[in-house]
Amino acid sequence: MTLTSFKELALKYKVIFFDAYGVLRNHKGMLPGIPGMFRFLEDNDIAFYILTNDASRSPQLLAKVYQDAGIPEITDKKIISSGMLARDYIQHKVKQGRLAYLGTEASAHYIQGKGLTTVSIAELDINTSEDISALILLDDEGFDWNIDLNKTLNLLRRRPIPVIVANTDVTYPMAKKDVAIAVGALGNMLETLANKTFIRFGKPDSQIFSFAYEFCTRKNKVTKNDILMVGDSLGTDIIGGNKFGIDTCLVLTGNTLPENCDLMIRSTGIIPDYICESVAL
Amino acid sequence: MTLTSFKELALKYKVIFFDAYGVLRNHKGMLPGIPGMFRFLEDNDIAFYILTNDASRSPQLLAKVYQDAGIPEITDKKIISSGMLARDYIQHKVKQGRLAYLGTEASAHYIQGKGLTTVSIAELDINTSEDISALILLDDEGFDWNIDLNKTLNLLRRRPIPVIVANTDVTYPMAKKDVAIAVGALGNMLETLANKTFIRFGKPDSQIFSFAYEFCTRKNKVTKNDILMVGDSLGTDIIGGNKFGIDTCLVLTGNTLPENCDLMIRSTGIIPDYICESVAL
Amino acid sequence: MTLTSFKELALKYKVIFFDAYGVLRNHKGMLPGIPGMFRFLEDNDIAFYILTNDASRSPQLLAKVYQDAGIPEITDKKIISSGMLARDYIQHKVKQGRLAYLGTEASAHYIQGKGLTTVSIAELDINTSEDISALILLDDEGFDWNIDLNKTLNLLRRRPIPVIVANTDVTYPMAKKDVAIAVGALGNMLETLANKTFIRFGKPDSQIFSFAYEFCTRKNKVTKNDILMVGDSLGTDIIGGNKFGIDTCLVLTGNTLPENCDLMIRSTGIIPDYICESVAL
Amino acid sequence: MTLTSFKELALKYKVIFFDAYGVLRNHKGMLPGIPGMFRFLEDNDIAFYILTNDASRSPQLLAKVYQDAGIPEITDKKIISSGMLARDYIQHKVKQGRLAYLGTEASAHYIQGKGLTTVSIAELDINTSEDISALILLDDEGFDWNIDLNKTLNLLRRRPIPVIVANTDVTYPMAKKDVAIAVGALGNMLETLANKTFIRFGKPDSQIFSFAYEFCTRKNKVTKNDILMVGDSLGTDIIGGNKFGIDTCLVLTGNTLPENCDLMIRSTGIIPDYICESVAL
Repeated sequence: MTLTSFKELALKYKVIFFDAYGVLRNHKGMLPGIPGMFRFLEDNDIAFYILTNDASRSPQLLAKVYQDAGIPEITDKKIISSGMLARDYIQHKVKQGRLAYLGTEASAHYIQGKGLTTVSIAELDINTSEDISALILLDDEGFDWNIDLNKTLNLLRRRPIPVIVANTDVTYPMAKKDVAIAVGALGNMLETLANKTFIRFGKPDSQIFSFAYEFCTRKNKVTKNDILMVGDSLGTDIIGGNKFGIDTCLVLTGNTLPENCDLMIRSTGIIPDYICESVAL
Repeated sequence: MTLTSFKELALKYKVIFFDAYGVLRNHKGMLPGIPGMFRFLEDNDIAFYILTNDASRSPQLLAKVYQDAGIPEITDKKIISSGMLARDYIQHKVKQGRLAYLGTEASAHYIQGKGLTTVSIAELDINTSEDISALILLDDEGFDWNIDLNKTLNLLRRRPIPVIVANTDVTYPMAKKDVAIAVGALGNMLETLANKTFIRFGKPDSQIFSFAYEFCTRKNKVTKNDILMVGDSLGTDIIGGNKFGIDTCLVLTGNTLPENCDLMIRSTGIIPDYICESVAL
Repeated sequence: MTLTSFKELALKYKVIFFDAYGVLRNHKGMLPGIPGMFRFLEDNDIAFYILTNDASRSPQLLAKVYQDAGIPEITDKKIISSGMLARDYIQHKVKQGRLAYLGTEASAHYIQGKGLTTVSIAELDINTSEDISALILLDDEGFDWNIDLNKTLNLLRRRPIPVIVANTDVTYPMAKKDVAIAVGALGNMLETLANKTFIRFGKPDSQIFSFAYEFCTRKNKVTKNDILMVGDSLGTDIIGGNKFGIDTCLVLTGNTLPENCDLMIRSTGIIPDYICESVAL
Repeated sequence: MTLTSFKELALKYKVIFFDAYGVLRNHKGMLPGIPGMFRFLEDNDIAFYILTNDASRSPQLLAKVYQDAGIPEITDKKIISSGMLARDYIQHKVKQGRLAYLGTEASAHYIQGKGLTTVSIAELDINTSEDISALILLDDEGFDWNIDLNKTLNLLRRRPIPVIVANTDVTYPMAKKDVAIAVGALGNMLETLANKTFIRFGKPDSQIFSFAYEFCTRKNKVTKNDILMVGDSLGTDIIGGNKFGIDTCLVLTGNTLPENCDLMIRSTGIIPDYICESVAL
């Protein structure tokens, strides 16, 4: 394992894509040195975007966490969430009817105000569901799993509708070493039980990279060679970036611990172009 | 599809294994002709057992449903439930510590009174779980899925314990055409998330057939050739019976509809030895 | 099922993406009316591309089939094959060492001449494989499955290298109703046995759509709203197009038979925007 | 990890079930001390059986390997192979037609002489396959994978027949650290491609334990408490024995290395009752 200085590495690129959790922050809050690092990027005219498997809150609310931690550089324009891809899908593909969702009111932001009526599965009367035209899984919170997962399964048995999972993650980290079951895992269970093919958005699927790339080429004159993806997870950030054809940098402040790093790269065959201890300068 | 008369077929065997749901009863109650059929078996000295993927209630409570419907022949001695196999496993293999379970108080019957302390996941404090020596999944009811599935996952991340799933079914039928998510499906999700290998009991796995076979050879002098398995599901009752090496009979009163029967046999390659419209005489 | 006239539908779009097999040709050759249809597109200034899960032959050779059948409009510039994405990955990500491949000499076209030495698994001596830097699965032909699949598995156990599967299909159609096992299925088996995560290119994955989109935006001023994807398979062409956010049209000349169409849409929940009997005018 | 002396442990049981590969022998031949250990068992009236996932050769040929190595105690009556369970299934369940198989002539021993005509897939003309009544996968050798796996898949698409996989293993060890793809892995690929449910025999499935148990209760008056299962693999020997309800002993001469033993037990949650360095006395 050869470690690279993130500062020197960053200067080689015009655009940097960051994963959020495990790279910029963790369950205790912002990681050390993050505000200074973003100031350094701005000073050196390096553009950046945060690519996150998150449909639980709007880009505005996601950005606010960074702003409140003293990083004014991160505005909602810098956030690329899997929820935004789900929103795009809905706009292109769902023309009529009511849109059912699993998630909180905050997550429903992604699908509201698009001219479609939305209804939480929690509030849906399954006996008057003939006009439901799509189902979207946004967040693991905001509904009663016992009641509403069963209701969702029966909705899918009755109605031939597309299902969109707005977050591919199966767990997310909690305080200490614990995790929470994410909406991606609930989606996997429902997909198997309903025997359907769901549509998923989020790393490592290339569409979020493609979305971010389109986004940044509108503002910056860049090619894939000018972009670096920085993440802490081989199975999402690194393999996703590799497959999309951009350079990748693994950091050791999250899922991949320094002592396991070599073994994990060997056993998965997922090879980052660079490894940095952290993104702190 | 050639239909056989169940009455004539039954007379060829010394022992009949019945699946319960879809064969003897459904969501509306006992199917027509069932009490008379069991009287016929008794009159003709044909032994019978009910093999059921159920760990939600004791054999006594499971038998009571039939007795209350006017079938006194079905006592708790006639019930072979997957819960009984799980109980056996616990007795053989868990020697100390506390036994954690997902399920109702009624389902905990299977694991109580064996000299082990049991604790519902709902009541477990995960921070004092060092003495938990096994986890058993008994029923989909009796706990809060949002809270307790997460607690279970984190218990499995902390403690290297065997996990027993006392029911392989992933759904069970409800009124009309709806289904409910069974504990088997929750077990599949947790097994994937925890990256462990769980131990499962229930059809089509051969151990429940083996258990029933041992049970009936104690009382009756029989070989596998003397036994008929009757069920409504190709993927559990019929393939399980076929694999165990006993004759199998598909009935069309449950999961397999008369109009789909031929297609389902062709597409699965699971071939019952006989097909009967129902077990009514 | 409401059928649309392909002629009228085509006139609404600036660009059409076609699947090849089951849409333009089948095991007997070109489908009726295809040459006339392409002339119609040219006359009406509608651009087109053929998106195919194929890494067995170069775009030149793939195009030649159409040209030989009297469709001079289809040049190699019109072909977007999954092999081209694999080639791109190799160029971006494999900087040194030897590149091992499974496939024919013709398929190796995609990875040769990029400054890397390539070696067929059939010719590889596994005892001198320390310099192998990546493995690419191109075609199911060109090697001895008994010997070379075993050799490949052991290579992956010895060397921590990325593996690229240049065709996601698990089978492809042969004469009559038979199929052949495609390299995608061999890749799935090897991935499970080696316990790695392979990188796959081809429909329904969005990267081939993204690649085609970039390709056509270079020449045509179009947005996603101007593009129609035409295919015969719900699980690759239609769900892939839907997810990418372009309009989709199912044709009934291949995998999806007219008599099963409604049932398949209902049971999968994959809904094309349009259905046409064929692409013949 | 507390190590137990195998000698002392063995004296506590009336019957011992042994896994073969990794316990008694490996790619170099018989492990040290094995002949003496079997003499010790005979001297102390401890019965033993060898439970092996192997359908490539008859019990006679399997026993001969041990006899040739100076262990006359191991006769064909001591061998319980997964091939024997497959043979039993065929006898009970396949009454007519021709039986197709994948494997060598030696493996076909298990299904010949039962009054059924057998035909190797290699020799089968798929166009005259209307009388094929079952398919059995016996061995990974004896046929051309390129040609015959494709032929097998198309046979399964044409004929609604049961498929029996007589060995659940997906790989088997070869010289040094290499492995070979076993027929179980080919079975998994074909099952997915044909979208059928195959019937599998072999550890960890309980039926081989149940078969061995019946076998030894005919000769010895034993209960499950009198039996010890000895194996080198947590995922087959140990979990299978645990689930069947007999005591289990892990040895460290095969798949589970001393240095990984604790970690593997922790990470899988599969807990042997005892751990011995080897079965040598």
